[in-house]
Amino acid sequence: MKLATLTDGSRDGQLVVVSRDLSLAAHATAVTSRLQGALDDWDFFAPQLEDLYQTLNDGRARHAFTFDPKKAMAPLPRSYQWADGSSYVNHIELVRKARGAEMPPSFWTDPLMYQGGSDDLLGPHDDIVCPSEEHGIDFEAEVAVVTGDIPMGSKPKSIGPHIRLLMLVNDVSLRNLIPAELAKGFGFFQSKPATAFSPVAITPDELGDAWREDKVHRPLTVHWNGVKVGEPNAGDDMTFSFSQLIAHVAKTRNVRAGSIIGSGTVSNVDRSRGYCCIAEKRSLEMIEQGSAKTPFMKYGDHVRIEMFDDAGQSIFGAIEQKVVPLRRSEAA
Amino acid sequence: MKLATLTDGSRDGQLVVVSRDLSLAAHATAVTSRLQGALDDWDFFAPQLEDLYQTLNDGRARHAFTFDPKKAMAPLPRSYQWADGSSYVNHIELVRKARGAEMPPSFWTDPLMYQGGSDDLLGPHDDIVCPSEEHGIDFEAEVAVVTGDIPMGSKPKSIGPHIRLLMLVNDVSLRNLIPAELAKGFGFFQSKPATAFSPVAITPDELGDAWREDKVHRPLTVHWNGVKVGEPNAGDDMTFSFSQLIAHVAKTRNVRAGSIIGSGTVSNVDRSRGYCCIAEKRSLEMIEQGSAKTPFMKYGDHVRIEMFDDAGQSIFGAIEQKVVPLRRSEAA
Repeated sequence: MKLATLTDGSRDGQLVVVSRDLSLAAHATAVTSRLQGALDDWDFFAPQLEDLYQTLNDGRARHAFTFDPKKAMAPLPRSYQWADGSSYVNHIELVRKARGAEMPPSFWTDPLMYQGGSDDLLGPHDDIVCPSEEHGIDFEAEVAVVTGDIPMGSKPKSIGPHIRLLMLVNDVSLRNLIPAELAKGFGFFQSKPATAFSPVAITPDELGDAWREDKVHRPLTVHWNGVKVGEPNAGDDMTFSFSQLIAHVAKTRNVRAGSIIGSGTVSNVDRSRGYCCIAEKRSLEMIEQGSAKTPFMKYGDHVRIEMFDDAGQSIFGAIEQKVVPLRRSEAA
Repeated sequence: MKLATLTDGSRDGQLVVVSRDLSLAAHATAVTSRLQGALDDWDFFAPQLEDLYQTLNDGRARHAFTFDPKKAMAPLPRSYQWADGSSYVNHIELVRKARGAEMPPSFWTDPLMYQGGSDDLLGPHDDIVCPSEEHGIDFEAEVAVVTGDIPMGSKPKSIGPHIRLLMLVNDVSLRNLIPAELAKGFGFFQSKPATAFSPVAITPDELGDAWREDKVHRPLTVHWNGVKVGEPNAGDDMTFSFSQLIAHVAKTRNVRAGSIIGSGTVSNVDRSRGYCCIAEKRSLEMIEQGSAKTPFMKYGDHVRIEMFDDAGQSIFGAIEQKVVPLRRSEAA
């Protein structure tokens, strides 16, 4: 099924079920009004939401209305966890090669992950608000899952069935803040502003055969200012499956329902598939031409991230964001 | 006022108001049933909770009952943000000196902070569950604040009034996992298991004069296996105030209501005040004796973290935790 959260002036928005073709929505109020509530007691609520989804797809939902992705918040407008992996290891290798750093071989077996902020997650059409263009504003197109409860010490094999939902992600990075921040040793912080999510979260069964080995085997399409810059397959070259990433998180702690776990920037070894973040393009330019030519995003730039099925139908709806300056009045 | 969350089988527990002397509690159900709900609309709920607090302290609350800190969950059993500073810079300097590393002078002006997991926060009497004693289990006694909404770009001066609550923290660390994890460059992850909080969260006015310059000017008492090992003053040697730490978080993003921001391990330059984490003691031993003598925590060890007022009354109640192994049955 497909779920979305519509803006209603509240912090958590209103849960709706969205038809498979993304044309119609129906309020889930009679079942539960917030996505986190559904995740807290998934075995109870999911079958009821599935019933509504079936009714909506069959054209029998009595209070269906047109689904407007512009009114969508992030499916979880705030979450108790957002942890992002870096599962396309060839991307890490490339970025490091560009700055003349070797990649430790352990990176092929021990996932890189960082803990992100999750108190203010952006909807698919929310602006990317940045205090300065000099920060090196970059998009990062990814796939993410939403989990159920995963006890500490769980192994990947037992985790797969507890992956509840899938979403697309724009994990915006401020590239020019990263070197100094990582040099401090405590990981990303100011270099990772608010993250944006697709209009719709889907259950894995919506992908059919494209969901296997706990990976999404579909191309992820990225347009930057209207030009297609990347279409790598999210299932290719993904070194760690989502279950392996979640097992990494759960090694020393419990992972609780509603945790969002990201894949990291999708990247294929086949360079003809393009790029899902500007840093990758710049790394290639450094390696091949000695210096980076492609600038980072400027105010007014926009990015579109989407995934299509075989019939060309958008699966999650599109993330469509524009970069804008922080207005002085917003800051105290 | 003083607030706590009692376990009731739900994920978020039941909000109660606790009397100043921590002896009595009253359900806040008639106002709002969860602490996050109160924080989401603080200006509306706080005065009502204050009324109940006054009634309770006056001995006029009609359904008051004995407050049992053993039934307390973390005031926020899950939170949308837990970000921890490292504001006692002399502690960082000491730990680095012990391993022969210089501290960059910028550490005195640019706060170190890491993003922690916040989906599974522990109550004051919850066990510290660890898969292995070999991980180097350490306590870290800290103070933390809970914020209101802080817009991106806010300056410290405007932030103070939006600090809603204060709590004590045990930010457990797995020291032997840290070097390899930080070497990967993405910051702490598996080395930071679930964090525990004091039974009670208090509004800053409860501290009277001890709350000034957005710091807590009271000693923080730490007992390890019944022996007092530290009593540094949390207001001394705190390089960055809570407002400065929050401004650091808000530089490139909004900080939303209910965010928890930690001080980092409390540490005084005056060594006679003892230590709030074993790593500090071991660093001193390395510097003075050439090697660390004090071992990390073992299964069965316990730690007690508390803060008292001038009259010897516990302000937040005590964090009292025991280290236990992960039972195999808990992991799938």
